[in-house]
Amino acid sequence: MIKVTILGAGNVAQHLISAFSAADEIHLNQIYCRHKPDFKIPDKTSIVDNLNDLTEADLYILAISDAAVASVSQNLPFADNLVAHTSGTLPITSINSKNRSGVFYPLQTFSKRKAVDFKQIPICIETQLVEDFQLLEKVAKSISNVIYKMDSEQRRALHVAAVFASNFTNHLYAIAANICEENDISFDILKPLILETAQKILTLSPLDAQTGPASRDDHNIIATHLDLLQSHAQREIYSILTQSIQNAKKL
Amino acid sequence: MIKVTILGAGNVAQHLISAFSAADEIHLNQIYCRHKPDFKIPDKTSIVDNLNDLTEADLYILAISDAAVASVSQNLPFADNLVAHTSGTLPITSINSKNRSGVFYPLQTFSKRKAVDFKQIPICIETQLVEDFQLLEKVAKSISNVIYKMDSEQRRALHVAAVFASNFTNHLYAIAANICEENDISFDILKPLILETAQKILTLSPLDAQTGPASRDDHNIIATHLDLLQSHAQREIYSILTQSIQNAKKL
Repeated sequence: MIKVTILGAGNVAQHLISAFSAADEIHLNQIYCRHKPDFKIPDKTSIVDNLNDLTEADLYILAISDAAVASVSQNLPFADNLVAHTSGTLPITSINSKNRSGVFYPLQTFSKRKAVDFKQIPICIETQLVEDFQLLEKVAKSISNVIYKMDSEQRRALHVAAVFASNFTNHLYAIAANICEENDISFDILKPLILETAQKILTLSPLDAQTGPASRDDHNIIATHLDLLQSHAQREIYSILTQSIQNAKKL
Repeated sequence: MIKVTILGAGNVAQHLISAFSAADEIHLNQIYCRHKPDFKIPDKTSIVDNLNDLTEADLYILAISDAAVASVSQNLPFADNLVAHTSGTLPITSINSKNRSGVFYPLQTFSKRKAVDFKQIPICIETQLVEDFQLLEKVAKSISNVIYKMDSEQRRALHVAAVFASNFTNHLYAIAANICEENDISFDILKPLILETAQKILTLSPLDAQTGPASRDDHNIIATHLDLLQSHAQREIYSILTQSIQNAKKL
């Protein structure tokens, strides 16, 4: 059994705790958080709210905000243990050097109220010492089928790509929902389209999958749409993305 | 049997022809197109390349570009028949008034090389005459389980919403793929994230589903990402969408 301790109680921590609870190879030793978590913690796992109460584990995962990684890792009351953060953006060196450092970055969008199938979630791992890689890989494989070795620079680029592919697309769904609401149309009508758009890129490249007035250079429809949009911000987003689609075609 | 003739051979026409071919209630009478289509046409369906060769049908569907609807409907060699276009943007009145007009708008992103399950595709229908509605509804129900009655103004708004929810999100996938490629990362890593982002809004509202640095107001990460993006256009899109997510939070 590998003893894992998780620090944090946010979305990532919650989903990791739930995944590790179901993994045979992992004993979830302790959870560190300042407030009692509002989700289920396994019976054999203790909760502590003071870093000095942390006991021995094979791996400490910092599932906390980027801003807290440096200070929390500095305040850990031990040295020479393996400590990994879960950030897409922070380099591995942001973990205080008194411990052996690693990165354990699950690439997914986690919301409190939505369960996920962790087996499908890519986990990007990195360690400072070669001999630590095997342990981190074993821990990752206990909850996921998709493991990538990736250095800090690539992971940072991947995180930016993920913001476009996930956070920004979700915001476009929000704009679409807003337009529907203003026109008394159920947002449900758009759901099959949204799913198909995502499913298409499993088999087509995004460039091949592109459809719509911008990719057809249909200036009449584009003008009609801009005319229809009430919000200045929405018109600006419409224009800039239309332009970008047209430029991508020319490449 | 309802006799349906389809004019056009583009993406929408191809997928409609495939769906109607499998519908028991529909006899696909003729396909009108100027060039021999590069996809399968049912044996009992004839192909014509001259409007004067069109024979009697219960419904003529114009699955052609928006720009061609007025002229093709004007050049039809008959009157008082039911003619429907498939455009999200054009009003019902764009069909020449010598025939009875309708709209048959399937809301989906159609690509030549990707099959779709038509049963899940919402079809928005509209007719000028009340007595034509029943026929159009019957035709829609022969291929889909999701039928909406919608007037031209609502449909136009829905089409704009669909551009945000589908065409623009697909372009964000393309940008993400581009960032991956530049950094020697497989785009495959992002696919589970893209799927989950789409699936989330089946159960959460897009506002509740929003995650990422913009929604957390994480200025450090936002600055790091802007710094990392090589392309001016990508930085502009990043900034404008980040700003828009932050404004949406405040509403």
